[in-house]
Amino acid sequence: MSSYTQESAVTVLGLGPMGRALAGAFLDAGLRTTVWNRTAGKDRDLVERGAAGAASAAEAVAASELVVVCVVNYDAADAVLRHPDVTAALKGRTVLNLTADVPDRARDSAAWAADHGIAYLDGAIMTPAATIGTPAAVFLYSGPEETHQRYRSSLAALGGTHTHLGEEIGRAAAHDVALLDIFWTAMAGYAHALAVAQAEGITPRELAPFAKGIGEILPPIFEECAEEMAAGTFSGDGNPITSAVSSMAHIVHTSEQRGIDAGVMRAAEGQARRAIGLGHGADGFIRVADLLARQARAGTAGKSAE
Amino acid sequence: MSSYTQESAVTVLGLGPMGRALAGAFLDAGLRTTVWNRTAGKDRDLVERGAAGAASAAEAVAASELVVVCVVNYDAADAVLRHPDVTAALKGRTVLNLTADVPDRARDSAAWAADHGIAYLDGAIMTPAATIGTPAAVFLYSGPEETHQRYRSSLAALGGTHTHLGEEIGRAAAHDVALLDIFWTAMAGYAHALAVAQAEGITPRELAPFAKGIGEILPPIFEECAEEMAAGTFSGDGNPITSAVSSMAHIVHTSEQRGIDAGVMRAAEGQARRAIGLGHGADGFIRVADLLARQARAGTAGKSAE
Repeated sequence: MSSYTQESAVTVLGLGPMGRALAGAFLDAGLRTTVWNRTAGKDRDLVERGAAGAASAAEAVAASELVVVCVVNYDAADAVLRHPDVTAALKGRTVLNLTADVPDRARDSAAWAADHGIAYLDGAIMTPAATIGTPAAVFLYSGPEETHQRYRSSLAALGGTHTHLGEEIGRAAAHDVALLDIFWTAMAGYAHALAVAQAEGITPRELAPFAKGIGEILPPIFEECAEEMAAGTFSGDGNPITSAVSSMAHIVHTSEQRGIDAGVMRAAEGQARRAIGLGHGADGFIRVADLLARQARAGTAGKSAE
Repeated sequence: MSSYTQESAVTVLGLGPMGRALAGAFLDAGLRTTVWNRTAGKDRDLVERGAAGAASAAEAVAASELVVVCVVNYDAADAVLRHPDVTAALKGRTVLNLTADVPDRARDSAAWAADHGIAYLDGAIMTPAATIGTPAAVFLYSGPEETHQRYRSSLAALGGTHTHLGEEIGRAAAHDVALLDIFWTAMAGYAHALAVAQAEGITPRELAPFAKGIGEILPPIFEECAEEMAAGTFSGDGNPITSAVSSMAHIVHTSEQRGIDAGVMRAAEGQARRAIGLGHGADGFIRVADLLARQARAGTAGKSAE
């Protein structure tokens, strides 16, 4: 053990599927790894692989300079970290919180950490547990650049790409939320499409190759739309919002005629029709993003709404 | 003109952006092309390129064995085709309807065509007007296989890929609706993500590379999910619906905390929570597709709901 420096020791709090994957990758990379979970018995195989199983969160925290937290949400993270014994043990150490939640929770935790002499980094894991330790893993971080730099080599044990998004502590969670917004909305659309197709006598395997084709055209369109939004142009050349709502209405009609809930598309169509109602019918669809962004209360970015 | 057979003559009814692109591609391929539009003056440049401009829809229809219709929806198509003079002129000819609408409208039109001695093919164009005549164009067809075969070489003038989906006339429109469902739901999610990101201080150009990354992981996931639905397995291994709704709630919360409408994600979250409520919380997200499909009235596939 004496060959390890403090920087190459890490504690993992939370041994759900993701926490276990993180601890396993640290162990595989030869880091001195201490693990703890709120409910006992989850650490057995990790201990067999060389991890130190701590009897309490405070003991786990005391074992390493870097404490990685990965639990179900910030309520769970706070319940662990804000226990007086744990908070005391964390003084002078660094918390990397990889728990997913809304950006304001990260901001709140950073303020709490600063009040207690704890260095704090927030992070988001964008890929499933199975990717941890492989080149496919994607990690996003926000918080003090020097803190991120200090643990870069330890975090490299987790494999994949590691991107520091800036000092504002909410940025990792904000990216996480925005990217999951794209992912889960697209998945909701795909689930609905599979159902409508089935009601029309098209099997999932028949639809899949065409669905893949739709997926493949999205990345360049995403890039073009981001440029339009950044430039504020919203050109509807050849594909105005009026044409989009016509398609959307066909989807709603076909779905509801078969008795299938079309609530997701109804909501999307409503946002597009609102854009037309506000005089943007000749614009491209991404004008909807501009109108949604304008709903945001001015000046809240990067500040707690509490 | 005498070197053309009837099969290499084509009439295009409807000269919006897509109809014009179709007529232009037929002209470029050397087909004898007759064009007509409900409002006058849209044919000028096509006539300069060699098209015959017809004075009426009936005259346009009489000029070719193959009549391609591409107007805004089936109400507009019916208004043209079901005029007595046009219906009479169509007898013994073939209508290829590339107008987008719900599958039942194609079924209704096929029945009408059969009643009037008109051969009928339905089609869907899955790519923008700018792709017509290029390898990127994607055409789907449904209806009698022999009718499709008869005009294959003429349709090849439109470039890209041409897939005959089967004899059931509604299949092209049903594929169209299902695929546009995926596309426009994903676009609604992206528009919302751009807005939430902006409210959190993340610019469109900052989000775009990560958004592209999300787009790139969708095609293989679409394929896996189709296999799960086909097999009826819905394994939630490592990514159960309970985890999806946790992410969805973060998105709704972040969005609404900033004052941004989250109606699309609220609807998607509702469908997922319903799946959990029905006892499928340990399943993968695509169980939602199965539950939506079960909402469909039994035995309606391929039949008119009129």
